[in-house]
Amino acid sequence: MKTLSRREEMRRLGASFRSGKLRVGFVPTMGFLHDGHISLMEEAKKRTDIIVVSIFVNPLQFGPSEDLARYPRDPAGDAAKCRNAGVDYLFTPNVSEMIDEDPLVFAGMSKLTNVLCGVSRPGHFQGVATIVLKLLNVVQPSLLYLGAKDFQQTVVIGQMVRELFLPVKVIVRPTVREKDGLAMSSRNSYLFPEERKAATVLYRAMKLVEAKLKTGERSAELLKAIVLREIGNEPSARLDYAEIVNPATLEPLMRIEKEARLVLAVWIGKTRLIDNLSLKP
Amino acid sequence: MKTLSRREEMRRLGASFRSGKLRVGFVPTMGFLHDGHISLMEEAKKRTDIIVVSIFVNPLQFGPSEDLARYPRDPAGDAAKCRNAGVDYLFTPNVSEMIDEDPLVFAGMSKLTNVLCGVSRPGHFQGVATIVLKLLNVVQPSLLYLGAKDFQQTVVIGQMVRELFLPVKVIVRPTVREKDGLAMSSRNSYLFPEERKAATVLYRAMKLVEAKLKTGERSAELLKAIVLREIGNEPSARLDYAEIVNPATLEPLMRIEKEARLVLAVWIGKTRLIDNLSLKP
Repeated sequence: MKTLSRREEMRRLGASFRSGKLRVGFVPTMGFLHDGHISLMEEAKKRTDIIVVSIFVNPLQFGPSEDLARYPRDPAGDAAKCRNAGVDYLFTPNVSEMIDEDPLVFAGMSKLTNVLCGVSRPGHFQGVATIVLKLLNVVQPSLLYLGAKDFQQTVVIGQMVRELFLPVKVIVRPTVREKDGLAMSSRNSYLFPEERKAATVLYRAMKLVEAKLKTGERSAELLKAIVLREIGNEPSARLDYAEIVNPATLEPLMRIEKEARLVLAVWIGKTRLIDNLSLKP
Repeated sequence: MKTLSRREEMRRLGASFRSGKLRVGFVPTMGFLHDGHISLMEEAKKRTDIIVVSIFVNPLQFGPSEDLARYPRDPAGDAAKCRNAGVDYLFTPNVSEMIDEDPLVFAGMSKLTNVLCGVSRPGHFQGVATIVLKLLNVVQPSLLYLGAKDFQQTVVIGQMVRELFLPVKVIVRPTVREKDGLAMSSRNSYLFPEERKAATVLYRAMKLVEAKLKTGERSAELLKAIVLREIGNEPSARLDYAEIVNPATLEPLMRIEKEARLVLAVWIGKTRLIDNLSLKP
């Protein structure tokens, strides 16, 4: 595995792979890698000739009151995990390589970015989309691998790729979970032991909804009520939002007539966790 | 010359040229081609292996009260001119090929787009940048040719290409002028004969400024006063703006200490014309 931090070097490599007709699979990350990330690398390993992983804690996607400074980092551990997963190139640019001091240009997006997580994190998805667009132009991959845990992010990036005609295919892979159902996330490292136990409430609530759906319940309002009750019963949990949405447009649904997505964000102490589940009637 | 209107066909061709290491020179236009456009094609002919010209009257860059519906068009004449200029591929997508019915994604830009022409044409440069970004992703050229007449456009696109790390080099070529100095523009076709004569006032004003600069005058205020007076003396002309700006940032200058740009927009009857000149002290 080769580690590189210079943007121009990565771009030259990307261009040479593209003109050499080598299929590059790209896994963009913010580091502090867990099995969810590794599963993306393993999938890329099966389908592509070259795997590029980026580690870049993107300041554009953090709000002023958010956790940029304390976001967990483990460069040495991350490099070892990438090497074990068979990654070919680890791209670790610093901030000034990727973002101008006074950035003027951004990937803008209406509708999809100002709902759900976009409400409590204004500017977040614009920051995500902008950095992903820049990374795609540098790495020039054939396939982009994203994890389903960040569901809204996959919709936003998918829409950007489609609408801007970016020459890359987006592959969304299933969320990887701990044994007790908690979705893997770098932010799980913030949780105190008691909070860690409480954090399973997201998965428990989703599975209760799924079970109720199987009994024939189709009302989004009644299904969401199950989530509210379950989260409400967990003292250290506070609901940010729970919605059942059209998986393409993120618009809230009244009834589940075809495949829908249950999406939720829950504060466990000072840590905000998100999760989602496909609901098939 | 091959004419194609399908986006996917153009994209496949672009990808094959890129992987074949053929240098593509791309000239995006809104059609109704004049010698300014042709000069871009001729320059591309000298420097690249394949020339692609697009003709697309981009609705995103027209305001609701602007001239989209009456924008001049001449598909047959344009095709002949392209063929004569040695163009290899003429890309003429229709609107639905390039723009979703309900577009959600755009290339956003702060500062550079809300000054000069951006004041009287809000949303214009965002529309330009968005369509150029999409066209670049489809055509995948090595070199992008732009005319200097649309100076702010060259700055906006240059900044987008730099900041998003787009794998293309921007080449800005000099404005081509009629014998009497009027910058060539598709919109000149709107001018009535008397207006056509009056339209030379832009060039005359700029040359007066240049002459005054040569005498040692460095005050932007005093140099701009020359433009105001000259435009004021032309009955059918009405000034939109005249500024002397930093050519990279478009910020207005007080004094001309190094290369600056005189930029102006003038209404001649119901037609708005723009022009610009490099000022070297």
